[in-house]
Amino acid sequence: MDLTLTDSVVRADAEARERFYDSRGYGRPVDAGALELAPVEAAHLLYRGDLDAVDGMNFRAFLASATVSEIEFLVYKNLRDRGFYLTPAIDGWVDDPDRADFVVYPRGKGPWDDEVQYRVRVVSERATVAASDLGDVVLAVVDEESELTYLETERPDLSGSSEADLPSSVDADLLSDRALVWDPPAELYEQAFYGQRLDDQREGDLQLSLLEAAYLARRGVLSIDGGDEAVVARGREVEGDRFDRRLRVYATLRDRGVVPKTGFKFGADFRTYAHVESVDDLGHSEHLVRVFAREHTFDPRDLALDVRLAHGVRKRMVYALTGPEESTWLTVSRLTP
Amino acid sequence: MDLTLTDSVVRADAEARERFYDSRGYGRPVDAGALELAPVEAAHLLYRGDLDAVDGMNFRAFLASATVSEIEFLVYKNLRDRGFYLTPAIDGWVDDPDRADFVVYPRGKGPWDDEVQYRVRVVSERATVAASDLGDVVLAVVDEESELTYLETERPDLSGSSEADLPSSVDADLLSDRALVWDPPAELYEQAFYGQRLDDQREGDLQLSLLEAAYLARRGVLSIDGGDEAVVARGREVEGDRFDRRLRVYATLRDRGVVPKTGFKFGADFRTYAHVESVDDLGHSEHLVRVFAREHTFDPRDLALDVRLAHGVRKRMVYALTGPEESTWLTVSRLTP
Repeated sequence: MDLTLTDSVVRADAEARERFYDSRGYGRPVDAGALELAPVEAAHLLYRGDLDAVDGMNFRAFLASATVSEIEFLVYKNLRDRGFYLTPAIDGWVDDPDRADFVVYPRGKGPWDDEVQYRVRVVSERATVAASDLGDVVLAVVDEESELTYLETERPDLSGSSEADLPSSVDADLLSDRALVWDPPAELYEQAFYGQRLDDQREGDLQLSLLEAAYLARRGVLSIDGGDEAVVARGREVEGDRFDRRLRVYATLRDRGVVPKTGFKFGADFRTYAHVESVDDLGHSEHLVRVFAREHTFDPRDLALDVRLAHGVRKRMVYALTGPEESTWLTVSRLTP
Repeated sequence: MDLTLTDSVVRADAEARERFYDSRGYGRPVDAGALELAPVEAAHLLYRGDLDAVDGMNFRAFLASATVSEIEFLVYKNLRDRGFYLTPAIDGWVDDPDRADFVVYPRGKGPWDDEVQYRVRVVSERATVAASDLGDVVLAVVDEESELTYLETERPDLSGSSEADLPSSVDADLLSDRALVWDPPAELYEQAFYGQRLDDQREGDLQLSLLEAAYLARRGVLSIDGGDEAVVARGREVEGDRFDRRLRVYATLRDRGVVPKTGFKFGADFRTYAHVESVDDLGHSEHLVRVFAREHTFDPRDLALDVRLAHGVRKRMVYALTGPEESTWLTVSRLTP
């Protein structure tokens, strides 16, 4: 069978429709019993030997002709190999083509059913991905050696049940990149998990990060020279605008009953605990949080690194995207389709 | 005991020398039986209650006065708590003060012995660290919550024993971000581990990354339209100068018998195998390699992330620093002093 390509669509007859669409979910049926195939579908049929040629081109020539994206072909083939039927997300072919390249049906289902398992977007390792485009799509990243990594992206809500009665007007000194509380009330650290003891072997003096100090000074818990403005000014000195973004996320998490502590050892802004009653009974921190501006674009390699690390330490990777309104949350995790 | 601070040095008498230097390794003995203490040492003695005041300041006032760096104090205290004696790396106090803040002696030894265990440099999580300053120093990173992470840095040599006889003039097509070799000689993949099969279930067509294709085309193994220049030009199109840096490191590793494959899933440029005879018997890849220009400066948080990840997958993190001459290697790993 040698088919013809017109306007990026391969048009085929009723026989092809029966062989390719009815029994294996390739293409889109059109009027008069005919079938339209997207280039990536035609490439796969050429690869399998189900088609001899398209416009006289065999598989090798078709792939070299740049009619079909090589990375889309690799992902299409991989999903087919995994037993899925899928349809290119072309306007008019599927209901919700935005930000996706393929609509993938549950195993055993196809384009004639009304069920979608994944919306998949194909990106090269070297492309960047806007944070605003993620959240209801699976990223299929093709690396430079043509290996595939599937990353599921979601927009969860974060909340917890941590709460503590805090004292007020506790005296603290602002140092160059932290604050020190001399002989603080025990609940500040022991129940609410603010700060870290200057000496972890004994109760007493507490070191607070600038974020913790700014948050607590703003709420009247700390009494510090110059108030929370002085702490925020110091924060901006040491890390610029990022301090404001991180403080916004820190405050939102605390206000929602989630306790954020430094994520430095994991290369993140925070690790978080949803249910803290006492530091003696802390449990496992559930999330790693990284703070970005809403306009951030990701390098897929950084996503792969974060996701791999988070998985290795049994946590979930969450990106906090900050803007003029409340922060939104984006999780990214590894998926095996 | 209330001592006096002059020109950033605290001067003390013979009694102090006996109590602090002779028995516990604080300070530097000077003429006439006297002792000089660095501010960080004086702060520690104040903290312990061994000194009452310096210039009338107690510990709290001394720390708030900015006479001593709070992060140097935290690291000094931590190393003392771990049972080490150490000396501030001040010019004239120790033999090799460059790029270090403290010289740490083996446990049980002190400044009167002639043995150094670690040279330690103290950095805040928020400072950046030049790659050129690393290699014979332990970084003590103080994060925003005052937790410490020690990172050992070394300058190892990388080499391996992988070798294979390669065919010549194998026909390949250059696609937009990879090359395809149709029906290649088996040894290309099976012995030398170049490329990845288009279909991992069957022998045959091989996908090569642009790095692999450029390296092989330059050595006459591949025959490709436009030769290795065409591949390199394509590489620069998709990733700019970085392609040249990465190709230089790729070629150096291959030339030394080390097989580099993509490190994408680990967020790195390469994972490497030192001894490849056959892909059926690969073994574990030993290193993760990231390529940077020699002038690169690290964000300590990125170091923490890389080191944590590498440790989790039982590999060693190696930075390849490229310049006009051959690349140099820098490893960073977690240390518990």
